[in-house]
Amino acid sequence: MEIHYVIDTFFSIFAMTLIILMVPGFAMLEAGLVRTKNVTAVLTVNTMIYAVASMAFLLIGYTYAFGSWDHQESINKYAFFLFQMAFVGKVINIMSGGVSERSRIIPLVIFTVIVGAFLYPTIVNITWGANFLSGTFLDISEMHDLAGSTVIHSTGGWALVAAILIMGPRRGRYKKSGAVQVIPASNIPLVVLGAFLLWIGWFGFNGGSVGAISSKENADAVALTIMNTNTAGLAGAIAAWLLTYFRYKKFDITMILNGALGGLVAITAAPDLYDIHTPILIGAIGAALVVLFVPIFDKLKMDDPVGALSVHLVNGIWGTLAVGIFTDVSFLTQLKGVVVVGAIVFPLSFAIIYSINKVFRLRAEDEEQLEGIDSIECGMEAYPEFKRSI
Amino acid sequence: MEIHYVIDTFFSIFAMTLIILMVPGFAMLEAGLVRTKNVTAVLTVNTMIYAVASMAFLLIGYTYAFGSWDHQESINKYAFFLFQMAFVGKVINIMSGGVSERSRIIPLVIFTVIVGAFLYPTIVNITWGANFLSGTFLDISEMHDLAGSTVIHSTGGWALVAAILIMGPRRGRYKKSGAVQVIPASNIPLVVLGAFLLWIGWFGFNGGSVGAISSKENADAVALTIMNTNTAGLAGAIAAWLLTYFRYKKFDITMILNGALGGLVAITAAPDLYDIHTPILIGAIGAALVVLFVPIFDKLKMDDPVGALSVHLVNGIWGTLAVGIFTDVSFLTQLKGVVVVGAIVFPLSFAIIYSINKVFRLRAEDEEQLEGIDSIECGMEAYPEFKRSI
Amino acid sequence: MEIHYVIDTFFSIFAMTLIILMVPGFAMLEAGLVRTKNVTAVLTVNTMIYAVASMAFLLIGYTYAFGSWDHQESINKYAFFLFQMAFVGKVINIMSGGVSERSRIIPLVIFTVIVGAFLYPTIVNITWGANFLSGTFLDISEMHDLAGSTVIHSTGGWALVAAILIMGPRRGRYKKSGAVQVIPASNIPLVVLGAFLLWIGWFGFNGGSVGAISSKENADAVALTIMNTNTAGLAGAIAAWLLTYFRYKKFDITMILNGALGGLVAITAAPDLYDIHTPILIGAIGAALVVLFVPIFDKLKMDDPVGALSVHLVNGIWGTLAVGIFTDVSFLTQLKGVVVVGAIVFPLSFAIIYSINKVFRLRAEDEEQLEGIDSIECGMEAYPEFKRSI
Repeated sequence: MEIHYVIDTFFSIFAMTLIILMVPGFAMLEAGLVRTKNVTAVLTVNTMIYAVASMAFLLIGYTYAFGSWDHQESINKYAFFLFQMAFVGKVINIMSGGVSERSRIIPLVIFTVIVGAFLYPTIVNITWGANFLSGTFLDISEMHDLAGSTVIHSTGGWALVAAILIMGPRRGRYKKSGAVQVIPASNIPLVVLGAFLLWIGWFGFNGGSVGAISSKENADAVALTIMNTNTAGLAGAIAAWLLTYFRYKKFDITMILNGALGGLVAITAAPDLYDIHTPILIGAIGAALVVLFVPIFDKLKMDDPVGALSVHLVNGIWGTLAVGIFTDVSFLTQLKGVVVVGAIVFPLSFAIIYSINKVFRLRAEDEEQLEGIDSIECGMEAYPEFKRSI
Repeated sequence: MEIHYVIDTFFSIFAMTLIILMVPGFAMLEAGLVRTKNVTAVLTVNTMIYAVASMAFLLIGYTYAFGSWDHQESINKYAFFLFQMAFVGKVINIMSGGVSERSRIIPLVIFTVIVGAFLYPTIVNITWGANFLSGTFLDISEMHDLAGSTVIHSTGGWALVAAILIMGPRRGRYKKSGAVQVIPASNIPLVVLGAFLLWIGWFGFNGGSVGAISSKENADAVALTIMNTNTAGLAGAIAAWLLTYFRYKKFDITMILNGALGGLVAITAAPDLYDIHTPILIGAIGAALVVLFVPIFDKLKMDDPVGALSVHLVNGIWGTLAVGIFTDVSFLTQLKGVVVVGAIVFPLSFAIIYSINKVFRLRAEDEEQLEGIDSIECGMEAYPEFKRSI
Repeated sequence: MEIHYVIDTFFSIFAMTLIILMVPGFAMLEAGLVRTKNVTAVLTVNTMIYAVASMAFLLIGYTYAFGSWDHQESINKYAFFLFQMAFVGKVINIMSGGVSERSRIIPLVIFTVIVGAFLYPTIVNITWGANFLSGTFLDISEMHDLAGSTVIHSTGGWALVAAILIMGPRRGRYKKSGAVQVIPASNIPLVVLGAFLLWIGWFGFNGGSVGAISSKENADAVALTIMNTNTAGLAGAIAAWLLTYFRYKKFDITMILNGALGGLVAITAAPDLYDIHTPILIGAIGAALVVLFVPIFDKLKMDDPVGALSVHLVNGIWGTLAVGIFTDVSFLTQLKGVVVVGAIVFPLSFAIIYSINKVFRLRAEDEEQLEGIDSIECGMEAYPEFKRSI
């Protein structure tokens, strides 16, 4: 009926605009976390990802993922596209953020084209889309993943694992003595701004993934989804604070925010299925995993300047499995989804990134890193008038 | 009817997302207004307030304020909760902003729990909620306070008065000679960004407080409310500009923005009741009060780095009384509301903050203030790579 | 019918809030592009423009533009006003941005009053409004300009041409040797943040200009409009990147973003009329025009610190003419619209700005520019604690 079509199209546009706020959200978060000499490069990468990934999805990926532009009729097809398009860049943001300060831009852009046109659409195809695995033993379409704990966050996370293994750490990050060189965030206000833009964008991400709001049932599902999304973020922030504060007696704002983001990633698989208290547990465990895994990845010399592995990969997996623990959904179904997506994304992105690195040199040389990616790749400092103390 | 339920739930979610933009809004505003050595602490406090106040309201305060989760059925109960939850942190932001640069974080977090769970819900209970004062001579539920000139802004303001009286000024703010040490804002772009995020959030705050949009009458009330809200902000900015410019021959952007915010606070009691020209007067007077009271509070040695007393307390009172001047609502009813809320909030927060300060030491020592709260409490500078000239 | 009135009023409010995000959007973009010594002034100007232009439009301009407050009944009249009001400041932002770093604020405020009350309403009157040229040979109401490629962007652009001709370049910009002094942007994160806030605001600008969403036909038009708007931005970013990268072997983020904005300006005339692929061409050509015209204006010694002439004037014209090339709309009709608007705005703004400059001295003296507008006009630095290297 027309009024449902209208309201659901409007709602989809509303959700999409919230998600697009995540573009400056990621950009500010990462620009705040890296050193000033790499800020322009990080911002450029974020801008290019939005432009190139969205265009690749528009021209190629979307049809591959969903089979056609006319596969659904309950809302306007372009509103549906825009909502789906808003997701694509996120997958690459996760990977690019984790290899900040040591990657060149052109190879990242090439990777973006491949992810936007083929890799991400492959995962969407077999989960939310046309499903070319339907009927095979690899079929994972039964997995409950409302807004992408696995489809978005683990996918980006696996690509990041591949990239880190291929590229190695930033110059000077791990001393021969075994010590880890602490590299402080250069602009904390940007980190906070970015994190909250992401948080707000998540309301659109998860709420919009319900797909409709125009019946009482849908409206209830959307409200519960946004409620639970927010609660997991709250719990994540509080848990990360408690866990770090009682250890270090300091408030670590980047850890608090990464805890919130970890909680948000973890809830993303099923904010529509829980009662309103379960997200407290899911978010808190998500934050605990962030606090636990950040030093573990450093032990493994997997250098990740923004904590993306712990936030997105670990919590993408945790969130997807949690659905099998706290709801009627089968744990094995969820586990299978996690495994199949990892088994597709990791080797594929490894092969792609390995080739790109060989041909186009993804990793910036040590001297280039020392000078800063801004100067090498952009010819432009982020803050040219401020005297640097470092 | 279902379609009204759907549209009003959607509208409530829309309004809530605008209000959540005020979280980074307050954070950026305050981070821009304080000195760089206190920026990380201010940002941490803002983040903790959102997380902790919302969680306390979710677990305890909301039921206390409204009696139950099922007290209304016109929109989804979680959408209604989210909208109400978005308000809570604001009350504490007002207080925490005004004691910036001299407060420790743990005591603020404890205060946040108490406000989110008990103090703010008490005020909501007797105004918009279950009303345990119903039938007593203290009943103030007749007061017209659409979106919280008194419930939010005066409440936060009274708590701030208590805190300032207990904590005293920042180290070095008031010279023995009687002179006031000017402490300039460290980052003006953040101030402007924060103020406009607050302004936009206000559309959700006030517009959403109409409670519904799904009838012609409601839609008209929402549109008038947002119209008048915006107009009061415009008038506040212009009036603050004129009043300061003709005195100092300079454009004082922080005063212009505080004038706008003062106008927004003042209109918040009844944007739904005025014609479209009255808000010009209300906003302009609001800004005049800000320009007038900022130096008065300094005369009284009530040190308030962000001008929160003038913006929120003075204008919260002015805005509530203005309803009794410019509409048919009884002035005495409005005055009674102002007095009762003040008579509850001020002594209660004084007692709470006094105890917290005794036990947990809310006030940072002079030497800690000299070093900066960031270093003491967060172990992290906001801008570690920039050389400081001060 | 009531439900249409409700939904369309809600949609209009939604679109308006997105457009208001462009206020901090423009402010951050310009604050990032100018030197630190002019940042507070730029932010003050942006704030004053929003306040003063909106108030002038409320008190005078709106009635002039549309004839009355009751000219339409399909949505609430205040929601309609707010949506229209959100446009006004943009026209002046375009002009003020282009004369940054060399203009005094009071004269800009006076210009803002005149544009908000008379100049912009004149153009709205003859295009979207009451049309006092109806029946004359100057009637251009047949021009298709959905959201203002001509009405907003060219209008602002023509005013900027006038201002630049009257004011001349910034001190030291053009050397006697003929060389152009490069003046780097002072804060790249703010530039990126601002550009994306503008981009998101554009969804409201163009989507809202459809005027309604409550029928299937309208919902389809809104979705197509936002789809095409976004696509032109994507194409603009990509084209600007390719054109600059292959010439300079560097990623020029300010050019990439100006390319995106150029594409967004160009699509604004008719995002509702194209299929989903044409915007790729329109946006890419828009970006190419930006890349082409930025050096041309420098050759002509028309100094424009933010690239507003290329983004808004050139692409405002291109976008309006493109409708006559790629759709059934008559090219001559579009051309006539462009010419008539230019023929009204340019001489009028020349006369106004010339007079203002004579009486109130719009242009800051060379020594004032050397010291920085912040110190002269605001008595306040944007970043007082950071040591400057320049």
